[in-house]
This record gives sequence, C-alpha cells and structure tokens, in this order.
Amino acid sequence: MTGSPKKHKTVGIDIRKDLFGANEDAAALNKKKFREHGLVVLDIMGSVGTGKTQLIEALCDRLRGRRQILMVAGDLATTIDADRVGSHEIDTVQINTGTACHLDARMIRVALDDVDLSKYDVVFIENVGNLICPAGYSLGADKKIVVVSVTEGPYMVRKHPLTIKRADMVVINKIDLADILEFDVDALVRDIREVDADLPVFRVSSKTGDGVDNLLKALGF
Amino acid sequence: MTGSPKKHKTVGIDIRKDLFGANEDAAALNKKKFREHGLVVLDIMGSVGTGKTQLIEALCDRLRGRRQILMVAGDLATTIDADRVGSHEIDTVQINTGTACHLDARMIRVALDDVDLSKYDVVFIENVGNLICPAGYSLGADKKIVVVSVTEGPYMVRKHPLTIKRADMVVINKIDLADILEFDVDALVRDIREVDADLPVFRVSSKTGDGVDNLLKALGF
Repeated sequence: MTGSPKKHKTVGIDIRKDLFGANEDAAALNKKKFREHGLVVLDIMGSVGTGKTQLIEALCDRLRGRRQILMVAGDLATTIDADRVGSHEIDTVQINTGTACHLDARMIRVALDDVDLSKYDVVFIENVGNLICPAGYSLGADKKIVVVSVTEGPYMVRKHPLTIKRADMVVINKIDLADILEFDVDALVRDIREVDADLPVFRVSSKTGDGVDNLLKALGF
Repeated sequence: MTGSPKKHKTVGIDIRKDLFGANEDAAALNKKKFREHGLVVLDIMGSVGTGKTQLIEALCDRLRGRRQILMVAGDLATTIDADRVGSHEIDTVQINTGTACHLDARMIRVALDDVDLSKYDVVFIENVGNLICPAGYSLGADKKIVVVSVTEGPYMVRKHPLTIKRADMVVINKIDLADILEFDVDALVRDIREVDADLPVFRVSSKTGDGVDNLLKALGF
C-alpha cells in the first residue's frame, strides 16, 4: 500500500478493463444460453424509487396466461422487490449484492445456474436501484430498459448521458404525477433526444396502467 | 485477459482493498488540511433528484453574511448544480467524474489543491447523485449527510442499510410533498431507527424552508 497515487490509478484502470472484459465474456455466454432457450430477457435499470418493480408487476399482470415469466431481482440487502413480484404468482430469483452497486453477467450466470430455463418465455431482470453503475455492465439481455420517473427532478437525463446512450429504450414512469409535481415531460423527452435521437421513449404510469400496453406492444408481446 | 473467472475475482477484491485503503489515507490528509484551516466540511450524498442542491442553496441563503462558503460539486458530466449554487454568489469548484459513481478523497484533494481555503469557513461537498457508492468513500469531511426524499418510494432506507450506517445524519427532504404522494414519513423514520437508533434525522423541505433552521442549528451554525 506504499505506491504513489499515480501507481494506484494506473493499476485501477488496468483492472477495470480486465473486469469489463471478463463481464463482456460472461454476458456473451448468458446471451447464448438465453437464445438456446428462446427467452426474451430484459434488463430493467433505474434509480431507487422510480417504479421498476411496479412496472414489472404491471407487465406480468398483462402477460398472465400468455407468457411464462421469471423475475430476477437485484438488490443490495433485501427481498422486497422479489416478494412483491412473487405475490403475482411469478417465479423469482433473488440476487443480493451486498455492497455492489449493480448486477453483472457472472452474478446472473450463477443465479440461473440451477434454474430450468426451458420453463420460461420471458425473464425480467430488475437491476440494483442506481442510474449510473448498471449502465456499464451488460448482462446478456436482449434489451436494457432505463426507467426514469418524474419524481427525480428535471436533470436526471442531462446528468447521465452515458446511461441514456447505453439504453435500448427509456420508460418515463409516474406520468400521473407530472402535473402535481409541475414536471415538464416534453422537456425530458427533448433531453433524451439530444443524447440519442432515435431511442424509443415510453410515457408510462405503472400505477394507473397508462402507456403499459404501448410498451408491451413495442416489446413484441 | 485469459485468466479464469475465479482469478479475475480474486484480483478484483485485492485491488478494491488497495483502493479503499488508499482512499482512507487521502481522506485523513484532507481532514488534517481542513482542520488546519478551521473549516467545517459536509459531504452531502443521496440519489439523483432528492434535492441536495436545493438544500445547499437553502443553507447558503441562511448563512449569508455569517459564514464564507465554498461548494464542491460532484457530477458525472455537467455543471448544473455548481451553476445553481454559484448563482447565489457562492464560490464553487466542479468535479466531473466521467463514469465514476462517487467522489473520492483524492478527487477532493486535487480539486482543492490550488484553492485558498483560508478564505472559507464552510465547505459543502455535493456528492455524485447515488445512494450506494458514495457511502463507501470517506472524503475527510466532518459529517456525511445522507439526503433521502419522500419521492423515492418507501423502501430506500431498508434497501440501503449500509448507507444509513455510514451516515452522520439523515435529511428527509421534500416533506411538503408527503401528503400528495401518500408517503408515511413516520414509517421511514422508524426504518432509519432500526438501522441506527441514535442517528439524527431531520424532516426538511428545502423548497418551503420548513425544517432548514433546525438543521442549521444542529450543524452548529
């Protein structure tokens, strides 16, 4: 521990590359496995309290009887989200990351190792609640869906351009609260368009159900 | 990059220890420097959109003419928060972290290297918007203040026990919205008490000013 700061920094950067490379390898293996089982796998990320779980619940309720669903819940310490989705008679797998601020592809591989994936059509992965770190780690999913909500203030897109760049679609959740909070949804959409003009954006209220059917359709369900 | 996953994992863990150790060393040096200048330094962390900047603005307005303030803003990519606080005639230093999800002690050291700290009484450090990662990195501040808000859903404390454990005080912000959002503030306080029975908790609306004077008093201003 006697190295100069510069040395620490260099070592850190090398290891980050190594970790990212290893993650990409694991993600590719996950993707191969998911394809073999014909699964649609969605990695749903966003800050704490943006309504990721409620969105998954809304999607599950609408897919009942049409698709067999597995939910994988990422959380530092609790099983709150898995319990909520599980109460809809959906199979769940919990990953508790301890202090890790995101899921990675190897966690997914280990968590699903003894799961019979042939039973399912769709896997919803709810990432750890965090708008930054999960963006950097591919899990092997088909799409990374970023959930933001009108309760997070007006700057969450402008402050997180990389998260938006790495998204395959964005859900703006809790639109039922936009008027009460005097939140300008159109301005937020413009912020998203500035980062990626072609990114699909969905205005949703997981609570009222508004926009959920549109999202389902876009997901091909 | 041909090592087995196990090898990667081991290397990663060693480096994390190294990084954390190096950070603690740098934080101790920062703390020494802050003490030499008689500064009160507050590390303010919380998820994006919890109102950290608005809280700092409210504190600055009430300390006008009584304390000389420096604000250090941590943000991935923008200067939005520093610009806001700067508009109150407060000196600011911006740290853009790129992809890093938290400030660390060395970033603070570098950012303040050419700043004449003898001009100031108080330093507000606004950490990168994230309820997880900044908790693990001491900056050398006197207190780590965790800001949560009633817009983040009911689980943000239960899901982040380590963040609460590492806090010196918690501000529950946006209490003016609690009724509209049907948010149970008392239940949240109970969640905090379960993690740390003695942690000071302040109910605040940075927008209306409710509770800000109480917080100032507790901070010794």
